[in-house]
Amino acid sequence: MQPSGRVPESTAARLPVYLRVLSDLAGVDSISSEELAAACGVSSAQLRKDLAVLGSHGTRGVGYDVPGLRDALAAELGLEQDWPVVIVGGGNLGMALANYAGFLSRGFRVVGIVDADQLRAGEAVVGGLVIQPMADLARIIRRTHAVIAVIATPAEGAQPVADELVAAGVTGILNFAPVVLSVPAGVAVRDVDLGVELQLLAFHEQQRSLGRDSRREGE
Amino acid sequence: MQPSGRVPESTAARLPVYLRVLSDLAGVDSISSEELAAACGVSSAQLRKDLAVLGSHGTRGVGYDVPGLRDALAAELGLEQDWPVVIVGGGNLGMALANYAGFLSRGFRVVGIVDADQLRAGEAVVGGLVIQPMADLARIIRRTHAVIAVIATPAEGAQPVADELVAAGVTGILNFAPVVLSVPAGVAVRDVDLGVELQLLAFHEQQRSLGRDSRREGE
Repeated sequence: MQPSGRVPESTAARLPVYLRVLSDLAGVDSISSEELAAACGVSSAQLRKDLAVLGSHGTRGVGYDVPGLRDALAAELGLEQDWPVVIVGGGNLGMALANYAGFLSRGFRVVGIVDADQLRAGEAVVGGLVIQPMADLARIIRRTHAVIAVIATPAEGAQPVADELVAAGVTGILNFAPVVLSVPAGVAVRDVDLGVELQLLAFHEQQRSLGRDSRREGE
Repeated sequence: MQPSGRVPESTAARLPVYLRVLSDLAGVDSISSEELAAACGVSSAQLRKDLAVLGSHGTRGVGYDVPGLRDALAAELGLEQDWPVVIVGGGNLGMALANYAGFLSRGFRVVGIVDADQLRAGEAVVGGLVIQPMADLARIIRRTHAVIAVIATPAEGAQPVADELVAAGVTGILNFAPVVLSVPAGVAVRDVDLGVELQLLAFHEQQRSLGRDSRREGE
């Protein structure tokens, strides 16, 4: 199956969630857009629009063909083959990622994990992997042809690591370090800053309490 | 300092990053919008627009007052006091979060961590915390007045946990479980699915290779 190559970024951001929900529907042949939308946490109008962009249309009265739609989504996202992924940083977070069994079922294979701490080298991770020294990073990337890497280092180490990853051929970085990485055009960075996520929840709590106060004032 | 209570959600999503960058500028009194924008990874037009909504204007030729802007951002996000946070799930990810020293400097204090595995109860985390049994969850929330909680459980356990959190008074959930949670209106959920993040990088790689192919075809 060929990816369409014409899905806008905003739609693309929702496709992995649709794929995850469909993958959980083992043994189900078809599903209505309303049911699928509810399970994905979007409106059915949004879902239908997104899937139409993909060229996938449900059948009126029957719904979407679950296995067919799952394959189309996997193809669109480039998940028909496994992507090798290298993890930089063997702290709690790096180990959590390296040990996350769910990655394999979702199209990714952790092929290497490195840590700056020499004493950690040789420590076992699941899947027969061991932590390797940071000095081996470029060699691991070239050997495994990984183009996707995860940075799970402290903030101060992240930029030099990103530079090294890019020099070795990585073009997609998932960055957990709380710092804005500078990378050349054409390299994609997705930032996940757990502090930012919590601060946005705090903002929501603050808005709630302001709303309560203003309602009280209006009483 | 009073929060303005009129910042749109899309702007709010960028404020934690501005705050993080300003917090790293210890000893710096003022900064130009261009420099600050570059460090935050946004355009200076975007930065100026966001900060104007906040009621904060730089001084022409001098720039932004760093400590003043930092205080205004913290107030806007509701970070002038520490928020108590409860973590559900003591696996690698839950422990990574519980042990993340950065939370404290960013407005959060982990006041409890629970795990469904009875054998984990009593295990030490940093800061004098120990893992407590899942059965104590509601009691911990009521005692600590936590309104923000983190779900770091496997997918199948997440919805019952969310139900229990909401029943105990939690109104903000950071969800790492790969599942769409169903919560009442007024409860905020932020989903961080590490598989989704990697799949979006894969999508980017796929788009790159399609772009290369079509360029080749045009040669």
